[in-house]
Amino acid sequence: MDLLHTTRALQRRADVERGAGHRLALVPTMGALHAGHLSLVEEARRRADRVWLSIFVNPTQFNDSKDLAKYPRTLEEDLGKCRQAGVDLVFAPTAAEMYPEGAQTCVDVGELAHPLCGATRPGHFSGVTTVVAKLFLAAKPHVAVFGEKDFQQLAVIRRMTRDLLFDVEVVGAPTVRESDGLALSSRNVNLDPEARRQATVLVRSLETAERAIVAGERSAAALLHGVEREIGKAPLAQIDYAQLRHPESLEPAPAVLEGPVLLALAVVFHSPEGADGASVRLIDNRILDPKPLSGGISP
Amino acid sequence: MDLLHTTRALQRRADVERGAGHRLALVPTMGALHAGHLSLVEEARRRADRVWLSIFVNPTQFNDSKDLAKYPRTLEEDLGKCRQAGVDLVFAPTAAEMYPEGAQTCVDVGELAHPLCGATRPGHFSGVTTVVAKLFLAAKPHVAVFGEKDFQQLAVIRRMTRDLLFDVEVVGAPTVRESDGLALSSRNVNLDPEARRQATVLVRSLETAERAIVAGERSAAALLHGVEREIGKAPLAQIDYAQLRHPESLEPAPAVLEGPVLLALAVVFHSPEGADGASVRLIDNRILDPKPLSGGISP
Repeated sequence: MDLLHTTRALQRRADVERGAGHRLALVPTMGALHAGHLSLVEEARRRADRVWLSIFVNPTQFNDSKDLAKYPRTLEEDLGKCRQAGVDLVFAPTAAEMYPEGAQTCVDVGELAHPLCGATRPGHFSGVTTVVAKLFLAAKPHVAVFGEKDFQQLAVIRRMTRDLLFDVEVVGAPTVRESDGLALSSRNVNLDPEARRQATVLVRSLETAERAIVAGERSAAALLHGVEREIGKAPLAQIDYAQLRHPESLEPAPAVLEGPVLLALAVVFHSPEGADGASVRLIDNRILDPKPLSGGISP
Repeated sequence: MDLLHTTRALQRRADVERGAGHRLALVPTMGALHAGHLSLVEEARRRADRVWLSIFVNPTQFNDSKDLAKYPRTLEEDLGKCRQAGVDLVFAPTAAEMYPEGAQTCVDVGELAHPLCGATRPGHFSGVTTVVAKLFLAAKPHVAVFGEKDFQQLAVIRRMTRDLLFDVEVVGAPTVRESDGLALSSRNVNLDPEARRQATVLVRSLETAERAIVAGERSAAALLHGVEREIGKAPLAQIDYAQLRHPESLEPAPAVLEGPVLLALAVVFHSPEGADGASVRLIDNRILDPKPLSGGISP
């Protein structure tokens, strides 16, 4: 496995690989790799014959400097996991490499970046689209794989890729979960043990909504009320947002659901009183598909 | 010579050419080609073995819809000139091809886009950097050539290319002029005959400043006063801006000039009273280099 640190070296390698007819897949990550990332590597392997993974904790997508400071950094372990997973090349640039001195250029996707995480993390998606554009330009992949756990991020990157005419196929891969259902996230390690136990409230509230849909509930307000009640059972949990949105445009869902809809959650977990440690914000989501109700009379 | 209209076809061609080891040069234009554009083609030919030229009147860089409407469109003539000049491929996309439905993604370079033309044409450089990013992504050139007549545009594109890690060498080529010194511009054809005669006031005022510098003038205010007086001699001319700026950062020049400085002019020419036709805005520029004064006593 190769390890490169400079854009110039990566671009020369990409030219050679593309010139030799190889299909390149890129898996952009911020490191602290877990089984979720490794599932992206597997997906990349199915779609390309060279799998490259980038590790870069991108400062411009952190609206909160404390969050940036405590984001886990585990490069040596990450490289070991990549080697084991059959990654062909890791790109681990410095911040100065990704943001040359005086860099001010931004890539923004407009409205898709405004709701949900865009509303509670100002500037976050501008940082994401800017760094992903740079990673695409540095690695020149044919295909790039992102996790569906960060649903809005995936939507925003698809939009950027399409709008700017990037010759890159963007692929989403399903969320990987712990045995108790918690979605894998590099931030999970920052959870206090009691907060970690309560964090399953995210997946439980998604399942609550799913059951309600299957049982015939079509009211957006009633569904969200059920979700909020479920999250309210976890004393350390504080809702950042719980919303129903159109899965592509991310516009608000109608009051009465008719087609597939995104249920998106962001929940902050505080440390128990007296315990050490700061709060941790987790996200999760599910596409709910309200099939036509059976038993009704259809004209 | 080939003529392509879709991004997809262009990207496939770029992959083939790059895979075969050819070096690609792109000359992005808005058509209405003149000898200035053809000098860019010559420069491109010196630097690559495939010369591609794009023709696209980019709506997002026109802040004035009247200016967009009257911008000359001469595709058949342009193709003839390209053929004669040995261009290998022309890319002439539709607006829908460059801006897919619902496209909202923008590329912005920050401060470099704010002064000069950025101040009097709001949104102009955002349109430029967005469309040039798309053209680079569509054509995948090794090198791209732009005219120095649009000095700020060149600076803005260099900055975008560097900041976003585009693997493209950006080259500036000297301004080509009519025999009377007027810088070639596709907008010159929109000048009323009398305004055309008076339009040489741009180059004359640049020469006035050059002579003053050679004669030892180092006061920015005095230089600009001379420029304004010269432009004032043309009754149809109205100054949009006349400024001295740092040639790279585009920051305001110091009151007493020490190193090379950009003199940038934008002048609007009105039609003579009673004549048909709207006003035409022209730009021109020169780098003034105040060499150390001779005759002084250097310690």
